[in-house]
Amino acid sequence: MKILIINSGSSSIKYQLMVMPENEVICSGMIDRIGLETSNITFKTSANSHEETLPIPNHKVGLQKVANMLLDAEKGVIKSTSEITAVGHRVVHGGSDFSDTVKIDEKVKAKIKQLFELAPLHNPANLEGINVAEEIFSSAEQIAVFDTAFHQTMPEVAYKYAIPNYLLTENKVRVYGFHGTSHKYVSEKAINYLDQNSKIITIHLGNGCSMAAIKDGKCIDTSMGFSPSNGLIMGTRAGDIDQSVVFYMIKNLGYTPDEVNSVLLKQSGMLGLTGYSDLRDIEAEAEKGNKDCQLALLMNAYRIKKTIGAYAAALNGLDAIVFTAGIGENSSYMRNLVCTDMDYFGIEIDSEKNQIRSKEVREINKANSRAKVLVVPTDEEYEIANQVYQLLNS
Amino acid sequence: MKILIINSGSSSIKYQLMVMPENEVICSGMIDRIGLETSNITFKTSANSHEETLPIPNHKVGLQKVANMLLDAEKGVIKSTSEITAVGHRVVHGGSDFSDTVKIDEKVKAKIKQLFELAPLHNPANLEGINVAEEIFSSAEQIAVFDTAFHQTMPEVAYKYAIPNYLLTENKVRVYGFHGTSHKYVSEKAINYLDQNSKIITIHLGNGCSMAAIKDGKCIDTSMGFSPSNGLIMGTRAGDIDQSVVFYMIKNLGYTPDEVNSVLLKQSGMLGLTGYSDLRDIEAEAEKGNKDCQLALLMNAYRIKKTIGAYAAALNGLDAIVFTAGIGENSSYMRNLVCTDMDYFGIEIDSEKNQIRSKEVREINKANSRAKVLVVPTDEEYEIANQVYQLLNS
Repeated sequence: MKILIINSGSSSIKYQLMVMPENEVICSGMIDRIGLETSNITFKTSANSHEETLPIPNHKVGLQKVANMLLDAEKGVIKSTSEITAVGHRVVHGGSDFSDTVKIDEKVKAKIKQLFELAPLHNPANLEGINVAEEIFSSAEQIAVFDTAFHQTMPEVAYKYAIPNYLLTENKVRVYGFHGTSHKYVSEKAINYLDQNSKIITIHLGNGCSMAAIKDGKCIDTSMGFSPSNGLIMGTRAGDIDQSVVFYMIKNLGYTPDEVNSVLLKQSGMLGLTGYSDLRDIEAEAEKGNKDCQLALLMNAYRIKKTIGAYAAALNGLDAIVFTAGIGENSSYMRNLVCTDMDYFGIEIDSEKNQIRSKEVREINKANSRAKVLVVPTDEEYEIANQVYQLLNS
Repeated sequence: MKILIINSGSSSIKYQLMVMPENEVICSGMIDRIGLETSNITFKTSANSHEETLPIPNHKVGLQKVANMLLDAEKGVIKSTSEITAVGHRVVHGGSDFSDTVKIDEKVKAKIKQLFELAPLHNPANLEGINVAEEIFSSAEQIAVFDTAFHQTMPEVAYKYAIPNYLLTENKVRVYGFHGTSHKYVSEKAINYLDQNSKIITIHLGNGCSMAAIKDGKCIDTSMGFSPSNGLIMGTRAGDIDQSVVFYMIKNLGYTPDEVNSVLLKQSGMLGLTGYSDLRDIEAEAEKGNKDCQLALLMNAYRIKKTIGAYAAALNGLDAIVFTAGIGENSSYMRNLVCTDMDYFGIEIDSEKNQIRSKEVREINKANSRAKVLVVPTDEEYEIANQVYQLLNS
């Protein structure tokens, strides 16, 4: 069956048309930098690779562009949208309502909408994708795969906050964790590579960034919490910050709560520290001697290092760390910063292996490193397609 | 010279009259549970030990009670307040204005007041102590010793938040760290005991709780940040929490920012999780089978363990962990929870040594433990007296 995967991120759409269970990719591509002046649009089939640059103001325009490319008389891959059996949507926040992949109906959409406040950069884009997909691919089953599901195995000590109990029992305030589809996929690949159930830490560094501690294949802790705003330093998100800063900005600096939230989500992180949000620009500037960029990269790596230490404590051991996603797979600079002065944890990076670029699972530690350092390209689209296929055949 | 030390905590006053540089304690005592129904009041000299229980509604009443006891015709230790050369005040928040011990004048008081919003549970009590002391000990030099000073050696990667740079440069939003007097004192004692400059982690567990990573005697990271509200789980403070919870409570649950702040400072932590804020009560309940209390203790220990791991990464090594302050010195239960399943870090506690009660520096690890586990009773009063003495003789 043909399954279309739609992964609407905060500023991007990745899409992939697959035949399952054969795991054959008919076409794939992405639209990035949505909302900025120009978006790069890619569309790739076995026969064709097409790229263009256009302004894409929002996700709706972006998804319509994807549909047009799929149906294009010349370069397209389908004649009718009815060929597509199911559309699998990545949905970031499943709250406490969704711990598994589900078929989408009006009730599911209403719940995804109720969760907007918990994932304000993501769930709206996800729901937009669902609504547009329902119009365009009206005969297909619409299915949601939640980023929070993999983290449901966390024990209470890890997911509970030290706040009054009614906030958990009545208001569902707890650690949910995100990027679950990616952490699940790369941890399974890593366990397969290591050929043992292990104590591993997955480090997903993309536009959003998070880490997970994984014991015997199950998540026991993760760095994002109630929403995808805390933990590591991200492109525009602050990650962890003393909550008293929020109250100080409201009470003493005259911000409204919404304004503080907006500063912490959209004007902080690498952007707030450097003026740039794309890590490639920041690395280039750092190499030219820009002090703000050098410091921001060190801060980013320092927080990852501390989280590796924290999870080594949660696991009481460490067999491997796994880098994945855009930055994790491609930035040898960031991987090197993270692995420097970490020999206490048995982490010793091989600087030549670290430079290799590949789409394969690879080991970049020195031969005698006690802990393995792996790079595992993530494939959220395959993981989603597989879950959709499993659901339709269950 | 006689130096009176006043340490006004959020719900207690500790006081001590000392002769310096001889380090002779003339009298000492404390008033705890200020604001609760009954306070325990202690007053101890070499000749006398006096204890009573009275309602002490606030710090002003408490300090006047202290002065009356010092001057008491029968049990007192001074005939006139003019015998006291200096009063050394512990002041929690020095912001970016104070990186050293200073003589108090109107300007200093104004700055301590400006910092109320950064330490709302502490600086008001500290300033109250200064004002009352100026009236009662009018001929004495009033001197402030700041809890933030020891942490000023932290590098930028540790003290900077990933928020827009103007919030640091213009608004001084950064990690300050607290309990500096205690971390300084116990780390020096530990280094002296270990007889080497080392990589050590100090764990101050009292009514407030914080940790510090100390390399060659200097603080390189600490768990409290901009204010004493984050990091570890405390008696009534939540410690670390995803900041999005704050926005959620305001936007979706109808709290005002002040109400959220109050919940996180006064109704959270061990109190919010169990209904009790005194750890002795919580341990007793846990042993009786109370599930909330058992979980809260495990959560508390889990966060300490993760911070040990994080600081082992910051230090790239670990020679010793050091427990101090009320809970750290007295709760073998909590020390055992923290050290359980930490052999990856070379931490192996000796369960018999862990039960020993003593006022001395002691080692409670197994003989073959790679990392030492020390208990070092803190003495903030001595540390403050010494800093006051040094300042007056410099």
